[in-house]
Amino acid sequence: MGSYCFGIDVGGTTVKCGLFKIDGTMVEKWEIPTRTENHGSQIVPDIAEAILTKMKELNLEKNDVEGVGIGVPGPVDEKGDVLVAVNLFWGFKELSKELTDLTGLPAKAGNDANVAALGEVWKGAAEGAGNIIMVTLGTGVGGGIIVNGKILAGHRGAGGEIGHAVIHHEETEQCNCGNHGCLEQYTSATGIVRMAKKELESSADESVLRGKEDLSAKNVLDAFKAGDPLAVRVIEGVGEDLGGALAVFSCVVDPEVIVIGGGVSRAGEPLLEIIRKYYRRFAFTACKDTPIVLASLGNDAGMYGAARLVIQK
Amino acid sequence: MGSYCFGIDVGGTTVKCGLFKIDGTMVEKWEIPTRTENHGSQIVPDIAEAILTKMKELNLEKNDVEGVGIGVPGPVDEKGDVLVAVNLFWGFKELSKELTDLTGLPAKAGNDANVAALGEVWKGAAEGAGNIIMVTLGTGVGGGIIVNGKILAGHRGAGGEIGHAVIHHEETEQCNCGNHGCLEQYTSATGIVRMAKKELESSADESVLRGKEDLSAKNVLDAFKAGDPLAVRVIEGVGEDLGGALAVFSCVVDPEVIVIGGGVSRAGEPLLEIIRKYYRRFAFTACKDTPIVLASLGNDAGMYGAARLVIQK
Repeated sequence: MGSYCFGIDVGGTTVKCGLFKIDGTMVEKWEIPTRTENHGSQIVPDIAEAILTKMKELNLEKNDVEGVGIGVPGPVDEKGDVLVAVNLFWGFKELSKELTDLTGLPAKAGNDANVAALGEVWKGAAEGAGNIIMVTLGTGVGGGIIVNGKILAGHRGAGGEIGHAVIHHEETEQCNCGNHGCLEQYTSATGIVRMAKKELESSADESVLRGKEDLSAKNVLDAFKAGDPLAVRVIEGVGEDLGGALAVFSCVVDPEVIVIGGGVSRAGEPLLEIIRKYYRRFAFTACKDTPIVLASLGNDAGMYGAARLVIQK
Repeated sequence: MGSYCFGIDVGGTTVKCGLFKIDGTMVEKWEIPTRTENHGSQIVPDIAEAILTKMKELNLEKNDVEGVGIGVPGPVDEKGDVLVAVNLFWGFKELSKELTDLTGLPAKAGNDANVAALGEVWKGAAEGAGNIIMVTLGTGVGGGIIVNGKILAGHRGAGGEIGHAVIHHEETEQCNCGNHGCLEQYTSATGIVRMAKKELESSADESVLRGKEDLSAKNVLDAFKAGDPLAVRVIEGVGEDLGGALAVFSCVVDPEVIVIGGGVSRAGEPLLEIIRKYYRRFAFTACKDTPIVLASLGNDAGMYGAARLVIQK
């Protein structure tokens, strides 16, 4: 068994690379650009080269390295095949196999949000927990479910796609996924701005948000924290939608802890308090006290989780 | 390794006992009464005696028997401890341990709805599937989630308690669990009658259900199948609530198949067609084609699943 492993987190613009000891200590991290031209055909060779170069640089032999874990933005099945990754311009790809062919190292692939959840369970906010729900509030809403310490990838790699749970059947605006009423439409950064604009239109109340150009989720969250009544109403709605949805997911998973990450979560405790209030209201009795905490690994979660993926038995 | 095992399904009035070969062939089944007096303290000793008597009768030695699996109506954690089982008048009980102490056989315990799902995966409608969602529409709504072939018991044994997913935040009537708006309040047998009565009150439309004494879910489902417009409206509502909720659960689990069981499911294909229609409308793209099928083991599912539980590695 090697004493090192690599954890790779592939994003639409950069690839985050991490070298870890198998006890979870990060030895080094660096980035390379994500070259999406030619249907992203250079992405995996670039990653393989980065890994082999780093091994040479540090005089690591193949048997020093346990393997390479990799997280990508798209559904990945239990075998490590990517079904599609729109932002990388990939269709179906046998990612684990391709990475092994190019590096000579064992490789395991997972969905990026699922892998981030695995990172938080390994070395982050949910360290040591067996079952968790993680939700990532960014431009969209991602999710990762860990059951008995492992990623719930699902039959088609769509396990944990909780951002696309339809929570409002009556919604008329369309989500990017084609459905109407997805959680993402209300609780992502984009969704928060959308809900604030709707509230500004439908009410005549004074608000620091009124007339603001390029309204951002941060503007809305800052106004909420400053007590702006209109912003408070918007964020109460976000809390009801998210807390209520998490309560539903808890009936499925009964997690030990719920972890909230992503850019929106930088609003911190005041936002969490509202999510907790609605979660408690709607959760099944046995699950009402499930802790809801902030993610702690930030942008490194994907690298940690990818590394964990490949050394996990 | 023994070549036999017992599968026990404990209900509020009878205990169903099954003797199986470990390949899943049922050798024999019988029932004993559930004695709930004295806080149900006789239930486990009665089961142990039934097992030992059957072994004597068939000349089975302890090493012929792989173990005893048992399903009970209440939350059971990964260790096999029952947290509470209201219908059996049990508080906390180390059920697996107690059963082993009394029989000298390995024992494993699970929640009855979870165990029924495991039975359907082993020898029923979802045979061979790794990931499923099973929902049991009876007096209440039970659920069981199987991930990678195993029960998702959850942190407090509340995994799969999908009947208590709150789907209507605005509900004013209370569920038995204390919350308002649980799936069970709309889609159980009791829920279907409740929704039919509400529809009868709020509309003046003619219906075969009007003036019916002791209205039952079967009456409503029969009227729906006969095309009674009011009953059709009621069952469309049930289908939207259940299909929509299953679509949400699918975003978490991404199951290979969804299994519908319980007394209400005897309405068969016409009911399933309505559930499928709404499921497809609200499911995440990757999950829209998930098959929704009827359970096939009926009242034996719990025995099959309990047997599977104890021989599963």
